Amino acid sequence: MRLTVYLAGEIHSSWREEIRKKTEALNLPVDFVGPMEDHERSDGIGEEILGEQPSAVFRDMAASSFNNLRTEVLLQKADLVIALFGEQYKQWNTAMDASAAITAGKPLILVRPEKLHHALKELSRKAHATVETPDQAVKALAYIFN
Amino acid sequence: MRLTVYLAGEIHSSWREEIRKKTEALNLPVDFVGPMEDHERSDGIGEEILGEQPSAVFRDMAASSFNNLRTEVLLQKADLVIALFGEQYKQWNTAMDASAAITAGKPLILVRPEKLHHALKELSRKAHATVETPDQAVKALAYIFN
Amino acid sequence: MRLTVYLAGEIHSSWREEIRKKTEALNLPVDFVGPMEDHERSDGIGEEILGEQPSAVFRDMAASSFNNLRTEVLLQKADLVIALFGEQYKQWNTAMDASAAITAGKPLILVRPEKLHHALKELSRKAHATVETPDQAVKALAYIFN
Amino acid sequence: MRLTVYLAGEIHSSWREEIRKKTEALNLPVDFVGPMEDHERSDGIGEEILGEQPSAVFRDMAASSFNNLRTEVLLQKADLVIALFGEQYKQWNTAMDASAAITAGKPLILVRPEKLHHALKELSRKAHATVETPDQAVKALAYIFN
Amino acid sequence: MRLTVYLAGEIHSSWREEIRKKTEALNLPVDFVGPMEDHERSDGIGEEILGEQPSAVFRDMAASSFNNLRTEVLLQKADLVIALFGEQYKQWNTAMDASAAITAGKPLILVRPEKLHHALKELSRKAHATVETPDQAVKALAYIFN
Amino acid sequence: MRLTVYLAGEIHSSWREEIRKKTEALNLPVDFVGPMEDHERSDGIGEEILGEQPSAVFRDMAASSFNNLRTEVLLQKADLVIALFGEQYKQWNTAMDASAAITAGKPLILVRPEKLHHALKELSRKAHATVETPDQAVKALAYIFN
Amino acid sequence: MRLTVYLAGEIHSSWREEIRKKTEALNLPVDFVGPMEDHERSDGIGEEILGEQPSAVFRDMAASSFNNLRTEVLLQKADLVIALFGEQYKQWNTAMDASAAITAGKPLILVRPEKLHHALKELSRKAHATVETPDQAVKALAYIFN
Amino acid sequence: MRLTVYLAGEIHSSWREEIRKKTEALNLPVDFVGPMEDHERSDGIGEEILGEQPSAVFRDMAASSFNNLRTEVLLQKADLVIALFGEQYKQWNTAMDASAAITAGKPLILVRPEKLHHALKELSRKAHATVETPDQAVKALAYIFN
Repeated sequence: MRLTVYLAGEIHSSWREEIRKKTEALNLPVDFVGPMEDHERSDGIGEEILGEQPSAVFRDMAASSFNNLRTEVLLQKADLVIALFGEQYKQWNTAMDASAAITAGKPLILVRPEKLHHALKELSRKAHATVETPDQAVKALAYIFN
Repeated sequence: MRLTVYLAGEIHSSWREEIRKKTEALNLPVDFVGPMEDHERSDGIGEEILGEQPSAVFRDMAASSFNNLRTEVLLQKADLVIALFGEQYKQWNTAMDASAAITAGKPLILVRPEKLHHALKELSRKAHATVETPDQAVKALAYIFN
Repeated sequence: MRLTVYLAGEIHSSWREEIRKKTEALNLPVDFVGPMEDHERSDGIGEEILGEQPSAVFRDMAASSFNNLRTEVLLQKADLVIALFGEQYKQWNTAMDASAAITAGKPLILVRPEKLHHALKELSRKAHATVETPDQAVKALAYIFN
Repeated sequence: MRLTVYLAGEIHSSWREEIRKKTEALNLPVDFVGPMEDHERSDGIGEEILGEQPSAVFRDMAASSFNNLRTEVLLQKADLVIALFGEQYKQWNTAMDASAAITAGKPLILVRPEKLHHALKELSRKAHATVETPDQAVKALAYIFN
Repeated sequence: MRLTVYLAGEIHSSWREEIRKKTEALNLPVDFVGPMEDHERSDGIGEEILGEQPSAVFRDMAASSFNNLRTEVLLQKADLVIALFGEQYKQWNTAMDASAAITAGKPLILVRPEKLHHALKELSRKAHATVETPDQAVKALAYIFN
Repeated sequence: MRLTVYLAGEIHSSWREEIRKKTEALNLPVDFVGPMEDHERSDGIGEEILGEQPSAVFRDMAASSFNNLRTEVLLQKADLVIALFGEQYKQWNTAMDASAAITAGKPLILVRPEKLHHALKELSRKAHATVETPDQAVKALAYIFN
Repeated sequence: MRLTVYLAGEIHSSWREEIRKKTEALNLPVDFVGPMEDHERSDGIGEEILGEQPSAVFRDMAASSFNNLRTEVLLQKADLVIALFGEQYKQWNTAMDASAAITAGKPLILVRPEKLHHALKELSRKAHATVETPDQAVKALAYIFN
Repeated sequence: MRLTVYLAGEIHSSWREEIRKKTEALNLPVDFVGPMEDHERSDGIGEEILGEQPSAVFRDMAASSFNNLRTEVLLQKADLVIALFGEQYKQWNTAMDASAAITAGKPLILVRPEKLHHALKELSRKAHATVETPDQAVKALAYIFN
């Protein structure tokens, strides 16, 4: 039994790498998918495919189409979603993906520093499990297999 | 035909009141529901019902149960969701409710100031319609009826 | 038992009026809903709500949001869909609404002149029933009630 | 991770071949399925299997059964649908398949020349992404994988 | 709380009348719906609406469209299905409606004489309850209300 | 907005009466439904409708049909489920109904004395909210309305 | 792409063998599943597993459990259902399986001799395609693959 | 065709081992999954991952998150659930998992000693099949394959 895990959340730190390495070290049969991690490409993909747009707003609209397409295809392939919130940024896409997963019946592990507990309390209660670090998320993942 | 509309979003400004009044002025057959608007009560509902909790984290966990219960019941009753993002706050519950609505097949109107376009571009693309003010949301609502 | 019926299809002829009148003459307990029938308003609703857009393409994109929102809300309320194809126009929205209805499990009556049989053969086979005139659609509707 | 992609749309030009070749050139792990591309066989399959029918209308009805069966089986296997509209023909099956995909939760890429924007604006807004050429559709497909 | 009950099964005996009268005598808040009980009209409805058909097979095909449309609309309105099998006839529509109800999550009461037990054993096991007479079906209905 | 609430759980104490009275005292617009509260009738309903059965096991099998039918119809009508566990009895039907509610997307309030926490920890985590007394359940219900 | 096909229908003739052989001759990538074809074993499976039952009715009830379990598991694995009606027998399980397939969204090919057209007209209209012989069903199957 | 089977139920006896061995002896193509069978680890997994909790109640709450996550992922992978009730313990998780399986459309085999018939009669009637021993469950499993 292999699992496909979608890693939702910010693309500015190396948390996905940490999860990948620790999962590999444990020999867990897991395939990871997730959002485009190259931030500039993610913002520019609309113009990359469709050409220049009339304004920043329309540039964003074009990019969002392809990012949503990508996320939708990969999320549907996932057996499980891990969503990480850091202390910076709005992270509305993380909240959006986490909530979409839960609503679609995909099990969700929420990763957030304890200090974000208050702002994330309702999402945390909806998640199957909430942890504070990527390392704990890997432990939760490992628990499924043995 | 009456519609039930869930008003997701911050509870610190009077935007719900504006939407209610303008909808009433247009005689639209709409019933509004939404989150607990008394912020202190929303944060304290866990202890109000269950008694004192061992720490702030557990106080939040207790409150989140009853807030999620309330939202889930009312969201299931809604034919349509209007979700407003302001310029302040994390507003992760707004993103969570908006995404839950879309994933569950409930039509969504997103209200956000243009300056938030970039951070909300993917959620905006998933919404049925995005507007910039409560007044525009009421116009979108009115358009359904005539 | 009252039924809500969504009337999908072109807004350039008086076929909806014919269906409404004949249904009324038969005293059938039916409420009709359907797309915005004022063509100009339907095309301009995006700019009516959001203000001027940078080009015709973006004007259309803005309008389509509010038209889709309207259709989605009303289609979810419908117990039954009647979709009429005439001999003119592309009528892709009619095909889109008819197929959305069928896929979502809503019973569908397709109305089309016999001469369109070939081009509509697959959609016709998916519909619950295919007739050639609005009058026949009313007869099918009446058959449900007695 | 391999994806199965259904290519909906007209069978009179070589657009599917273009998509297949460019996808192969990029080594994308994609399997393509789609409608019967032999037009005469598609129109005659009812009589091929069931024997001669009493009229052209019934010949069409017989053919549509087997075409719908084929489409339904293959569409259910697909992770993603690409639907192309050209400048000719009614293309109601394309609209039907695209709308069925969206309603069933299958991600959709719409391909249409810009000049069809107005007539396809509502379907375009429902699609996950809209592009103008098969080449752009392949770029959107490629974006999912890296 | 009122319930809508679909009465599936043969239209050659007065079993529906018996159920209606006994339910009324018990003052149960139930609305009954069901198939067209005028057998000739049910067989001829296709030609009644569409005009003469080329053969008996096509006459049946036309009629089946409108009968299926009628059943689908009414079955979707039902909270509960009662399906009766008698000792005569093929009764494939009864089996079809009963199985459709169960598969769609509608509670089902099966009514059949004991002597049909063997042939109906699998359908009986799928039903929520199996009884032998219309009178017992009314008792099962009454049990829901008190 | 009225809510229908299913009260799952033991029928040997007066907890339902307490919930009904307190809800009424608060003028909450709630209709309550629930299992047959006459224990003997619940156990004997199979023989009451179908006549004597060959053994206690078959007597139970007959009764269970009608109890499941009743529960299924009423649970589908409910907007919310309150499930109470007491300190006695196996209460497997309570666990079954609570889990069915959650799996079908119905919000669930679990009521259990603190001392049962360990044995019910997984069900408690799945519930939207867990409280310890009927009085607290009424408070949770009241919170939905204001 | 391999397809799993459930062959519903009578187990007294060799029609499944005919379909299997012709499919193999065409090298179609199809795996067939279906009901227990050993009639005696199918009728006796309840007592084979659970031991002697108190009467013929209860013997049937026991057998039906295991037959339904088997069918449910295999039907959920199937991409497509072929249901054959012959001229003899009640064949209520065939009607039940065919209707369950359609209601669950599984494409259905109905095979029946033309003389059964009248009694099967509504089920035929619900099927994706209706043919008269196993040989024609294989042709329909083959059409999906090329 | 391989099947994945979830083995729900108590972890204090060797019934899973019996099922695994007998299935292997029959060469059935089955993969088994199930709950964490190390009882102490199951109770302590919350603190193992998250660290010490403020009380036994919160220790349980933490553990239940990871147990529910594990169960949810594995149950979604399962084609079939076998749930065993023994004569000891509350076994509310067994009832919860069995009911979740049935409600989600997963076929269920219930295993219970005859003496538990009364308390489990409603769950038994909902299951696809009920047997009394693990050996009989393996026979039911074997019946699916030949």
